[in-house]
Amino acid sequence: MSLLVVGTVAFDAIETPFGKTDKIIGGAATYISLAASYFTKNINLVAVVGDDFPKESIDLLKKHHVNTEGLQIKKGEKSFFWSGKYHNDMNTRDTLITELNVLADFNPIVPASYKDCEFLMLGNLQPSVQKQVIAQLPQRPKLIVLDTMNFWMNSTLDELLDTLKMVDVLTVNDEEARILSKEHSLVKAAQKILKMGPKNLIIKKGEHGALLFNKTQVFFAPALPLEDVFDPTGAGDSFAGGFIGYLSKTKDTSFENMKRAIIFGSAMASFCVEKFGTEKLVGLNQKEVDNRVQEFVDLVQFEIEID
Amino acid sequence: MSLLVVGTVAFDAIETPFGKTDKIIGGAATYISLAASYFTKNINLVAVVGDDFPKESIDLLKKHHVNTEGLQIKKGEKSFFWSGKYHNDMNTRDTLITELNVLADFNPIVPASYKDCEFLMLGNLQPSVQKQVIAQLPQRPKLIVLDTMNFWMNSTLDELLDTLKMVDVLTVNDEEARILSKEHSLVKAAQKILKMGPKNLIIKKGEHGALLFNKTQVFFAPALPLEDVFDPTGAGDSFAGGFIGYLSKTKDTSFENMKRAIIFGSAMASFCVEKFGTEKLVGLNQKEVDNRVQEFVDLVQFEIEID
Repeated sequence: MSLLVVGTVAFDAIETPFGKTDKIIGGAATYISLAASYFTKNINLVAVVGDDFPKESIDLLKKHHVNTEGLQIKKGEKSFFWSGKYHNDMNTRDTLITELNVLADFNPIVPASYKDCEFLMLGNLQPSVQKQVIAQLPQRPKLIVLDTMNFWMNSTLDELLDTLKMVDVLTVNDEEARILSKEHSLVKAAQKILKMGPKNLIIKKGEHGALLFNKTQVFFAPALPLEDVFDPTGAGDSFAGGFIGYLSKTKDTSFENMKRAIIFGSAMASFCVEKFGTEKLVGLNQKEVDNRVQEFVDLVQFEIEID
Repeated sequence: MSLLVVGTVAFDAIETPFGKTDKIIGGAATYISLAASYFTKNINLVAVVGDDFPKESIDLLKKHHVNTEGLQIKKGEKSFFWSGKYHNDMNTRDTLITELNVLADFNPIVPASYKDCEFLMLGNLQPSVQKQVIAQLPQRPKLIVLDTMNFWMNSTLDELLDTLKMVDVLTVNDEEARILSKEHSLVKAAQKILKMGPKNLIIKKGEHGALLFNKTQVFFAPALPLEDVFDPTGAGDSFAGGFIGYLSKTKDTSFENMKRAIIFGSAMASFCVEKFGTEKLVGLNQKEVDNRVQEFVDLVQFEIEID
């Protein structure tokens, strides 16, 4: 019984109004795994890097209870590299460099030891690659969560629609929900997307929080109002990691429990943006996570008795 | 013991992607009074119109428990008129026409019968006019709420800062909070603005909800995700009306009760945007208001037990 995380493990170089980094470790699966590690100690990773990827970073993942047997290390090749620059409002960014490198022909292989997978988190990757992972599992997991992005909606929409039919929860941002559904209203967008296959849809609105929809219910979780957002990179993946990590821990996939999971996901995202890259997600303790979740409770809870 | 509402009563002509109106009744005090009327039957209005303002519209306000003794009707003059056109995203609009007319030399007069005022809602007006109202009250009300806008921050900042020292709650939108504080982060903006005088600050974020701050606490209320926003005109004033109406009804100005009041305000705003102008705010019943508030409860409430 375990959580399988599939996605990129990579190098990022980031520039924000607060400063810039050299190549630091990043990638969707890195953020997802680190965030999930505060909830479950049974995380299996499938990803690919080049032999330029530092052993210390792999050791860091291991220290966070991440099994790296499924992390392919390609001899003589280079890791995926992304570089971006955020604008002053932190809501928009320019991609400066994308070097696919090992990702160009990523063939995910799920090790035999991973095949008891109960929870599957498919980080943003080409939809056909995400589908290949599902195909390798002897039993359907209890819950499959898929993250994707506008790039695949524009370049490989058929593949994406095919893969969406297989998942329980889709996570996209508001812009992506509008592109995928061709609807401006997020309520209408959600109902259209839910007809494409996913039983649940999470629409991430960055600093404006997140919405969870199924066919009959809707839940809203705010983002924590922060003094400064230092670096938004990885916030969506940290959110997904906290979400699936909490569900893996509690093994309850009801809508009520997904609401709680979204609060834990939002808490992990709020940590992520406070420092560059993965810096803040490393070495948190349980008390800090609990206190942060309590801040969300205080932020939104109220008592109303309706006559 | 009563609620005093001061602000514009006016004509609007509105164009949205869904259609356009001829001159219909509008104005901050109109929306505030109508929204508040679902919570209290003791509303006193101070405003000014020309003799072009229809008697039926005044009768409509009276039907909503609004005392119009303080509504000045200027013979041979015309009512304030605003015309605007919303862009496709409904978040931005162009002002097409602003005719101040009677508003150009508005001298608010609080009738003697209004002077037991317990709750005072100062809708958006020139800050010196808002101040004149406070000066006419023999006793300081239990709560003074003031709404303002970027126009006064740019044209009469000193007057505004002077008036802000006298109020308990300031309501502005996110853009205005940033202009007034010169801070991008709303958390930093709030702390700066609270040092200018108001004990509480509400930052309205339109479709992204509203934040309530005092010096040590913060509360967030979402906007209801709607299939269509038909016409955003008056949403902020309907919010303020629901907020102060609920506080007037309950006579409890604690932070906990302001949280509830913000949910009721958000509910009234969510009604307002569903039709053109004041159309939806007229003739709601208590059951509809209660059901709408229950939707907010369902939208955000969750149960988390922190170990």
